[in-house]
Amino acid sequence: MISRNPQLAALKAGYLFPEIARRKREFAAAHPEDPLKPETRIISLGVGNTTEPILPCTTAGLVEGARKLGTAEGYSGYQDEGLPELRKKISEVFYKKVSPDTFSIDEIFISDGAKCDIGRLQLLFGPGTKVAVQDPSYPVYVDGSVLVGAAQGWADTGYGGIIYLPCTQDNGFFPNLSLLPENSVLYFCSPNNPTGAVADKDMLAKLVDAARVKGCLIVFDAAYSEYIRDPSFPKTIFEIPGSRECAIEVNSFSKPAGFTGVRLGWTVVPKELRYAGGESINADWARIAGTIFNGASNIAQAGGLAALSAEGQKEIRQLCDYYLQNAALIRNALQKLGIACIGGDNSPYIWACFPGRDSWEVFAEILEKCRVVTTPGAGFGPAGQSFIRFSSFGHRADVETACRRLEGL
Amino acid sequence: MISRNPQLAALKAGYLFPEIARRKREFAAAHPEDPLKPETRIISLGVGNTTEPILPCTTAGLVEGARKLGTAEGYSGYQDEGLPELRKKISEVFYKKVSPDTFSIDEIFISDGAKCDIGRLQLLFGPGTKVAVQDPSYPVYVDGSVLVGAAQGWADTGYGGIIYLPCTQDNGFFPNLSLLPENSVLYFCSPNNPTGAVADKDMLAKLVDAARVKGCLIVFDAAYSEYIRDPSFPKTIFEIPGSRECAIEVNSFSKPAGFTGVRLGWTVVPKELRYAGGESINADWARIAGTIFNGASNIAQAGGLAALSAEGQKEIRQLCDYYLQNAALIRNALQKLGIACIGGDNSPYIWACFPGRDSWEVFAEILEKCRVVTTPGAGFGPAGQSFIRFSSFGHRADVETACRRLEGL
Repeated sequence: MISRNPQLAALKAGYLFPEIARRKREFAAAHPEDPLKPETRIISLGVGNTTEPILPCTTAGLVEGARKLGTAEGYSGYQDEGLPELRKKISEVFYKKVSPDTFSIDEIFISDGAKCDIGRLQLLFGPGTKVAVQDPSYPVYVDGSVLVGAAQGWADTGYGGIIYLPCTQDNGFFPNLSLLPENSVLYFCSPNNPTGAVADKDMLAKLVDAARVKGCLIVFDAAYSEYIRDPSFPKTIFEIPGSRECAIEVNSFSKPAGFTGVRLGWTVVPKELRYAGGESINADWARIAGTIFNGASNIAQAGGLAALSAEGQKEIRQLCDYYLQNAALIRNALQKLGIACIGGDNSPYIWACFPGRDSWEVFAEILEKCRVVTTPGAGFGPAGQSFIRFSSFGHRADVETACRRLEGL
Repeated sequence: MISRNPQLAALKAGYLFPEIARRKREFAAAHPEDPLKPETRIISLGVGNTTEPILPCTTAGLVEGARKLGTAEGYSGYQDEGLPELRKKISEVFYKKVSPDTFSIDEIFISDGAKCDIGRLQLLFGPGTKVAVQDPSYPVYVDGSVLVGAAQGWADTGYGGIIYLPCTQDNGFFPNLSLLPENSVLYFCSPNNPTGAVADKDMLAKLVDAARVKGCLIVFDAAYSEYIRDPSFPKTIFEIPGSRECAIEVNSFSKPAGFTGVRLGWTVVPKELRYAGGESINADWARIAGTIFNGASNIAQAGGLAALSAEGQKEIRQLCDYYLQNAALIRNALQKLGIACIGGDNSPYIWACFPGRDSWEVFAEILEKCRVVTTPGAGFGPAGQSFIRFSSFGHRADVETACRRLEGL
């Protein structure tokens, strides 16, 4: 029989979130009486899965997108690179205000979500790439790099070949860019998953400057940008001059519009981007997207258009506000307990520090004592040790109950 | 700056279908007066994109899937591996009749379409894999293999490292399996894209036998199985005893239910499948799907469930019949012209032979003289030279017009 891809063998057995789901199931199985009592019902503040219904104008767009596929006039099939009107609308809504010469539609690629596009982006770079990440970071950057052979097996606290740039309380959760190697790909997420830290304009200017000096490509993950409430924080890397020559931006409708189950995102690949040899990165991305992807669902795209209408944008704000209010409750509960934390003000995640403790141990303790599922920081990288990520994606009543239980700890 | 992935450089510049769209656009630009007259309006029998509306019961499932995301009771987010009820339904509808011990839901993975899953499947095998294909074949098998480094650059008529198994009139469009190398991955599609040939039970038994003897893995592409009308042809590789130990099956709602723009498919990875080292291929596939994919749209999945209801299955038959009637019209028109062709009876594609001619030249001639877009056989592999693929995906009136023009040639 064929042999296993050694790159798969190099991956740790479980992707982080299925592993957490597994531990939750195990715990539930060991405590079969729990669900019968309100005070022991397990509450999840673990994964970043949205919980609230999609709001009316956006839902109407989805319903209409589905309905018209049943009509001769409204039917449509494959739309490989995405509906032109959606690409145009994204350009207007997200990029016109930050850049007078906004993006053309062939620089905006519609995807079925940021995670999926991050998986495909790895193919632009290939096995010879040096990969740097903020540490801690969203696991897909590293796991995806291992899958294409750009990183090697797990060794002690990290994958071989990955350059981990620690983001800690000491550096204000912004990495020391002197550690960034030349000619590398850097995954950078702001507002950050998992820390909730947001990079300000100065920080991003330093980042773009370092990337240009060192010949690096930034993959900027802006999936949480709509959670920014402080207007001084940039919502896109393209607010920074020079970024078009060194950055790709990945974004998503999942968290702002509640589309985690609808599947819609986009990636911006400026035409200015060139490899060392001068070839167009935009052209390669079009080739990859055309070859192993067939476009996001037309129904999701119709919903995306509705979400970017004037009314839909109000709904996005309303939905993000709901989760930000959850985040404020969680942060207050933690602060009352004297637990140091950041995030939750311009981000749906709160990053809480438990000095000297192992984060999987703290995870188990919170599950045991409060029946609350969280995410252990160590799952996001070596510098996540001793931290816990609290997610604000949950029903208000559940978040309130979780907070009461935490406060009683 | 970072360097280009050499595997991207190894790919020919354009994926086949965008290249055809480009040539169509070029032709249209050179003939601006064409669209004004009915007799010169360009008709596409090129790509495999469906054209007819989704039928009522299935559309109702999609609409309801969208509507309920706007309600507190009906809202759902990420469903990584797919809705359990859809996986169960697929198992019942497609596999129960061929196998008393049908598949469990953790052997059926819901995808956003066969093409996308074929792209991800490459990561199971990695750069060291020997890849064999039917020649001609759907370009994604080969292009995807090049992208992960399992094949090298284009040389003359094929990619280096790909084992092309010619499927020609001489061998009844079934490959000589003595050419199949040991420990290789073989992509096999039946009903075939592009030839329209269907493998019978004996052929598939030989295929499974060869794979087991030689330690090969078959990736069986059954995307056109619902077009089979001759009950003696198997609709799934899993009708063949022993296939669970050597085959993965990829399938799709695109062509049977008109879902090309909805994006829904599935892949069956039996638990019996093991690599040479004994590791579970099913477990690796779950890891890949969980890491770089986030599930098909919940709305598409709701539509898929409706399409597999008793009423939905009637709609699938009705829709396939429509395209098969188109196929019969095209085949008859070609036969009247004395052009030898196969397919179109249990498949939406007709494979027409133009002996001694270059297929891109024939493509250009049909476009020029009939204003009909087709697909040149050479685009599907070396053995496709001198053939043209006619697709039956089109409105009836357009197909009739195209046939009249062809007959006037």
